[in-house]
Amino acid sequence: MGSLLEEIRHNRALWLLIFVPVVLVAEHTAPTAHTMLFLLSILAIFPLAVLLSYATEGVAAKMGDATGGLLNATLGNLTELVIALAALQAGQHDLVKASIAGAIVTNTLFLLGASFLVGGLKYRMQEFNRINARFQSSLLFVATVAILIPSAVTAADSIGMSDFTHKLSVGLSLLLIVVYGLGLLFSQKTHRELFSSQEAGEHGPTPPMSVALATLAVTTLLVALVGEIFVGSVQQAATSFGMTPAFIGFIIVALVGGAAEMASAFSGARKNRLDLSVGIALGSAAQIALFVAPVLVLLSYVIGPAPMDLQFWPGAVIMMFLAAMTVVLVTSGGHSTWFVGVLLLMVYLILAMTLYLLPPQLPSDPPAKVSAYERVRTGLAS
Amino acid sequence: MGSLLEEIRHNRALWLLIFVPVVLVAEHTAPTAHTMLFLLSILAIFPLAVLLSYATEGVAAKMGDATGGLLNATLGNLTELVIALAALQAGQHDLVKASIAGAIVTNTLFLLGASFLVGGLKYRMQEFNRINARFQSSLLFVATVAILIPSAVTAADSIGMSDFTHKLSVGLSLLLIVVYGLGLLFSQKTHRELFSSQEAGEHGPTPPMSVALATLAVTTLLVALVGEIFVGSVQQAATSFGMTPAFIGFIIVALVGGAAEMASAFSGARKNRLDLSVGIALGSAAQIALFVAPVLVLLSYVIGPAPMDLQFWPGAVIMMFLAAMTVVLVTSGGHSTWFVGVLLLMVYLILAMTLYLLPPQLPSDPPAKVSAYERVRTGLAS
Amino acid sequence: MGSLLEEIRHNRALWLLIFVPVVLVAEHTAPTAHTMLFLLSILAIFPLAVLLSYATEGVAAKMGDATGGLLNATLGNLTELVIALAALQAGQHDLVKASIAGAIVTNTLFLLGASFLVGGLKYRMQEFNRINARFQSSLLFVATVAILIPSAVTAADSIGMSDFTHKLSVGLSLLLIVVYGLGLLFSQKTHRELFSSQEAGEHGPTPPMSVALATLAVTTLLVALVGEIFVGSVQQAATSFGMTPAFIGFIIVALVGGAAEMASAFSGARKNRLDLSVGIALGSAAQIALFVAPVLVLLSYVIGPAPMDLQFWPGAVIMMFLAAMTVVLVTSGGHSTWFVGVLLLMVYLILAMTLYLLPPQLPSDPPAKVSAYERVRTGLAS
Repeated sequence: MGSLLEEIRHNRALWLLIFVPVVLVAEHTAPTAHTMLFLLSILAIFPLAVLLSYATEGVAAKMGDATGGLLNATLGNLTELVIALAALQAGQHDLVKASIAGAIVTNTLFLLGASFLVGGLKYRMQEFNRINARFQSSLLFVATVAILIPSAVTAADSIGMSDFTHKLSVGLSLLLIVVYGLGLLFSQKTHRELFSSQEAGEHGPTPPMSVALATLAVTTLLVALVGEIFVGSVQQAATSFGMTPAFIGFIIVALVGGAAEMASAFSGARKNRLDLSVGIALGSAAQIALFVAPVLVLLSYVIGPAPMDLQFWPGAVIMMFLAAMTVVLVTSGGHSTWFVGVLLLMVYLILAMTLYLLPPQLPSDPPAKVSAYERVRTGLAS
Repeated sequence: MGSLLEEIRHNRALWLLIFVPVVLVAEHTAPTAHTMLFLLSILAIFPLAVLLSYATEGVAAKMGDATGGLLNATLGNLTELVIALAALQAGQHDLVKASIAGAIVTNTLFLLGASFLVGGLKYRMQEFNRINARFQSSLLFVATVAILIPSAVTAADSIGMSDFTHKLSVGLSLLLIVVYGLGLLFSQKTHRELFSSQEAGEHGPTPPMSVALATLAVTTLLVALVGEIFVGSVQQAATSFGMTPAFIGFIIVALVGGAAEMASAFSGARKNRLDLSVGIALGSAAQIALFVAPVLVLLSYVIGPAPMDLQFWPGAVIMMFLAAMTVVLVTSGGHSTWFVGVLLLMVYLILAMTLYLLPPQLPSDPPAKVSAYERVRTGLAS
Repeated sequence: MGSLLEEIRHNRALWLLIFVPVVLVAEHTAPTAHTMLFLLSILAIFPLAVLLSYATEGVAAKMGDATGGLLNATLGNLTELVIALAALQAGQHDLVKASIAGAIVTNTLFLLGASFLVGGLKYRMQEFNRINARFQSSLLFVATVAILIPSAVTAADSIGMSDFTHKLSVGLSLLLIVVYGLGLLFSQKTHRELFSSQEAGEHGPTPPMSVALATLAVTTLLVALVGEIFVGSVQQAATSFGMTPAFIGFIIVALVGGAAEMASAFSGARKNRLDLSVGIALGSAAQIALFVAPVLVLLSYVIGPAPMDLQFWPGAVIMMFLAAMTVVLVTSGGHSTWFVGVLLLMVYLILAMTLYLLPPQLPSDPPAKVSAYERVRTGLAS
């Protein structure tokens, strides 16, 4: 308990935890003040994400390397998962998909690019374990292929198409989870030593198991509560800020959800421990694509008003694919300079600017009954 | 002659040769039992493919390295070519195209992936000649560009479009054959030593020239006869099995036609001679894309009811392109582990699952008179 | 002055300068003889391009390495820029875009491929600075992403779309110019030594500063005058030759505008100084994509009848993207043989053949009022 309080005292981000009760109270007193609730929930989610990652690491540290690594890898994107679950329950499939696509793009382009830039401004040239980078980017590539195929193969809305899409989405989700599991087996077990340099993290004193577990449980619950408020307010807030829902889902949610990872990745880059940054950025992206997204598809059959498929807005598919290819391209050499960071950030800015300027009606999930003409009109709509 | 019988005795696959007369008789006695004829013809084609590859190697072994290598490379996909010719003569352009695309995808993803997996389960890490892998995957990449361009540039059906497509297809076919020829010149002649480790195959005793030539001729004839039965029965059989024609063409025909190569590639991987496996998998895919496909386009002007173009169903184009890119990505390093095999197989499973679930009407070659609306409805139909 | 005349005497290409007055006179005496004016203007632009590159190098040589390199890099595509400006002023956005796309494709595929082939026929294997190749191809990749995104995201023509496209185009143009500037900072300043081998060019005696500057000014003016005649005659000439406007813009204009670079690149390859060839080919392509194209977009708001956007005909987008990917693929190793040249040239021939055969009506910029149906009919029209 002491170490937890210690952590809160030292990590100023955690002072923002004060916004957790604030937003919960505000939700009850002013449930229609969407813009305020939106801003307060962002301020509350950020420290919760930091705390969650601290608790996860605490539990992982007590469990031995293999199980701990597994746990860490599985719960690493818990914040994103919990927020997405809230949106799933509210039937907001567009927001769920936008936040999945956004998390992938943000981790691969912004998080990695900013790490390279931050590190490159301090060190002339930095090296990282390119085997791990290749491994994670290959995983990501397979996942983007899985996401690309349904949209590419069916730009049509024939009768029975929706049935096809749902069956295919469930099948692809199961495949992706299997790949993810086999990837863990490979990287944590059979070929573990190839990934060694990544594990060189020293975490300082971690809390005792019971405290860590309790923190994990309570924080997850709080993220769920605040996430619900966030999801409930994001649409109206977006409109009042003049932002498109696509921009909110892709950029804002992803940046909020990934705040904790960012802090770690940038600090790794500044300490010339780029393996840590690359591992966080690509590992996180791969995990969202191969674990979070398929789990959400499968869970949508249990919770939520309607099952969700894996078919994304074509613009999002292309963005994910380009992000994966860019990463494959720039990480294959195993070293980076500040300009590599600039290139990644520029690709990110290109995508962000496009989403920001996009007319609001475009990137929505077209309803099932829309005519072929309509679908063509709204892009190569899925 | 003795060595041929010896081969038949030792290679149990050849015992299936009994199905060759069976299917020929069945075709005469029960010409409408499509499902039975389909199954029997698969059982008959498999040993014929093995025998064909044995005879080709026999002839090649007697002819000196350069000519032999050339012959081996040219006749390596004789089974696929003969089956495709039967479909071409029957005017089944969809089936021809699906089997071309399927052979490319199956060789690059399934054959290579399974070789990596089989080898990787026995050896911790395997190496292969990455110059050859790069060479073959570059050839494949150029071929997929050639196949991609007509579909990408013309998603339209303006008047005169069909004329354009046919002229372009003939031109592209000639270009591809020239690239293929220059590639042989490069790999077999001017820069031969770069590809050396690949040629380390010892084939055991080969039959005398006359026997090998006679076997080659007779087997080719038999493949042609059985292939015709296969082509004639595949559509109805597909329907009765509940499989889509796309799945049959892409997956079943490719697996049947490539059975002989698979046996060699897997055996190479198990003996840690991965160069053999990579050479077979990528060499075969490149050969189909750069030699078999264009030859079929050109031959369609001589045999067959109507000329065939090089324009594929857009889903198939994307699949070939993704397969080529995946291979470029995973083979650039020159070594493999079991997990690289898993990744390739997963991409293959993603494609196979999509084709299996696809509603039957979709992936057909749209007739020339179809309206723009129709074409949009049936995907970005070529 | 003496050295300039010396240069004219030795460089036979400059004898063609006689066509500059010829075409200017012809334009006044026979303003409707479009085919003749087209041919004469090509003959006149070629020596002007050579002279322009000579004058630019002359100025650069006097200015010290850093500023000179900067100037050389910035003015390297002055011919293309001036011709494009003439087309921009005439409101021929299609021709401007086709010539931008064509210059990128021609530099990356034809110029690089022919250099590899020319060099590879003389030397068994050639090496080049792969860091520079990666740098330039990464720049090119980012630029193609910027060009790809607007077309990919909006295949629609909703109301307000044109407004979106224009805003986005201006934003992307500014981003690209920033990347270009940062790239110069990286390659000429902070990480200069990584690119060293490229600068080993000896230019022979250069003219004095005043002569070089005067030549630069006069030649630029002449290119502008002749370029205007070229732009004014190209459409009718194309029709009378039976060429499509797309072919003219992509292939003819690019080959004419790049003639001077070609001479230098091929001569570098023959002298086994492949760094020079790779630098010219990829540097030129990157510069057009990241500097010339965005500058034209921004200038279109000042000169020209209507602002130009960055949205290309989808076929052109795919061609640029494939060219960038092909270059990334073949240059990553850092060495080349004649067959690598063949592969690049084949991709170029595939694109050129497609454009040559394309029915004339297709690749035009669809007017803003066209119906969704029309746009689908004319391809995935931007």
